Amino acid sequence: MSEANPFEKDEPEGLKTPWRASVLTLYPDMFPGPLGTSLAGRALENEIWSLEAVHIRDFAEGKHRNVDDTPAGGGAGMVLRPDVVSRAIDHVTGEGDTRPRILLSPRGKALTQEKVHQLKEAGGVILLCGRFEGVDQRVIDGRELEEISIGDYILSGGELGAMVLMDAVVRLLPGVMGKIASGEEESFESGLLEYPHYTRPTEWEGREIPEILTSGHHGKIAEWRQKKAIELTKERRPDLYESWLAKRES
Amino acid sequence: MSEANPFEKDEPEGLKTPWRASVLTLYPDMFPGPLGTSLAGRALENEIWSLEAVHIRDFAEGKHRNVDDTPAGGGAGMVLRPDVVSRAIDHVTGEGDTRPRILLSPRGKALTQEKVHQLKEAGGVILLCGRFEGVDQRVIDGRELEEISIGDYILSGGELGAMVLMDAVVRLLPGVMGKIASGEEESFESGLLEYPHYTRPTEWEGREIPEILTSGHHGKIAEWRQKKAIELTKERRPDLYESWLAKRES
Repeated sequence: MSEANPFEKDEPEGLKTPWRASVLTLYPDMFPGPLGTSLAGRALENEIWSLEAVHIRDFAEGKHRNVDDTPAGGGAGMVLRPDVVSRAIDHVTGEGDTRPRILLSPRGKALTQEKVHQLKEAGGVILLCGRFEGVDQRVIDGRELEEISIGDYILSGGELGAMVLMDAVVRLLPGVMGKIASGEEESFESGLLEYPHYTRPTEWEGREIPEILTSGHHGKIAEWRQKKAIELTKERRPDLYESWLAKRES
Repeated sequence: MSEANPFEKDEPEGLKTPWRASVLTLYPDMFPGPLGTSLAGRALENEIWSLEAVHIRDFAEGKHRNVDDTPAGGGAGMVLRPDVVSRAIDHVTGEGDTRPRILLSPRGKALTQEKVHQLKEAGGVILLCGRFEGVDQRVIDGRELEEISIGDYILSGGELGAMVLMDAVVRLLPGVMGKIASGEEESFESGLLEYPHYTRPTEWEGREIPEILTSGHHGKIAEWRQKKAIELTKERRPDLYESWLAKRES
């Protein structure tokens, strides 16, 4: 098995970017995929971040190079082997590499914008994409993997979750979005959903832009937007609304 | 502007599959992307589902073919125009087409596994991927778009959200996963997070598989797994645990 340290001087320049993602997957060809286009793609080209997708199967041994096996105690599906997974993790972990090691899994804690900021500050991530039934618990414990879920639904694997996590972080990196990002950010981080937006044309299918927005009265516009944001949050996300109320009253 | 009806007989066979997704995006090249590989990719090849990615810019008019404009009332970012978006929606909407029309947006209701099942039953979806600051509220109202969020974080656009939603549905379609899917499903839908998994080797870095799992005692194994699932859910997702308790007591 290769013992190459990706942070040694003869390794690609890419891994010295300000934010570095290593993804362990059975589908390395999925990457960068959507992250190779648009905002994240330009940032990748500009070396604001870097991405290596490592094939878990490269760390399997034996004639059949099996990465998984049947679950101890019985049951459906297959479980990723701890020995294979640990070798893949160790391979991408450089000396003194303090990047968080994350397993994308529906069993994880929910990804939040606050967590996204933490991962941005961490300088990078090592992401293990689950598949089949799951990953052997011993490698989760032994390599201190943090389990993160992107939402309360089941995907065919962790690859899309890894992409979602990376996209959320990359857009916050300096030089990627600039002021647009900050704007959206503040709005979301106020704890409320965003107010409704309008643009040209002034009339569309008999529907007009609310008069207040074309009044030029900045104070009243800000007030209207806040009111709408509160109404929307209360209706759609009573959980966020309650947290917002609690914070406001404290 | 083209008035083609994608459900007419001379249209590609793909759109007559059991589940049909139309995606409206400024990045049609991102699709199928990760959904072209693995489970979802094989199901696409086997015509269990179909995917058309439609470029919103094809429905813009004028010399500059602008799809967006500045927000009425001021503020950062750009807003997708209602006239352009509505033409794109109308283009992919066939006669008698009852597929839900969804806008991927952080302002939406949270995607849940229950919602995924509903969308599976609906025979398909029309997905609008937001970008920039947002989408004009009038087209959200006028075309009755349902806003859905895949989680409490901000992405650079709705494209990854659309992929997540489609992946979650497609793996449930008949013939895609079979029994493995049902297994995971039941576990998640029990309202608890999954118990830990173990597989070969029996010992790894001094860590052994819990003895109970190799005992062959099916009743005790089931009991142990249930206990572990409860503990994990209580620790990581007190919200799910509370709902599970409430359901169990009712």
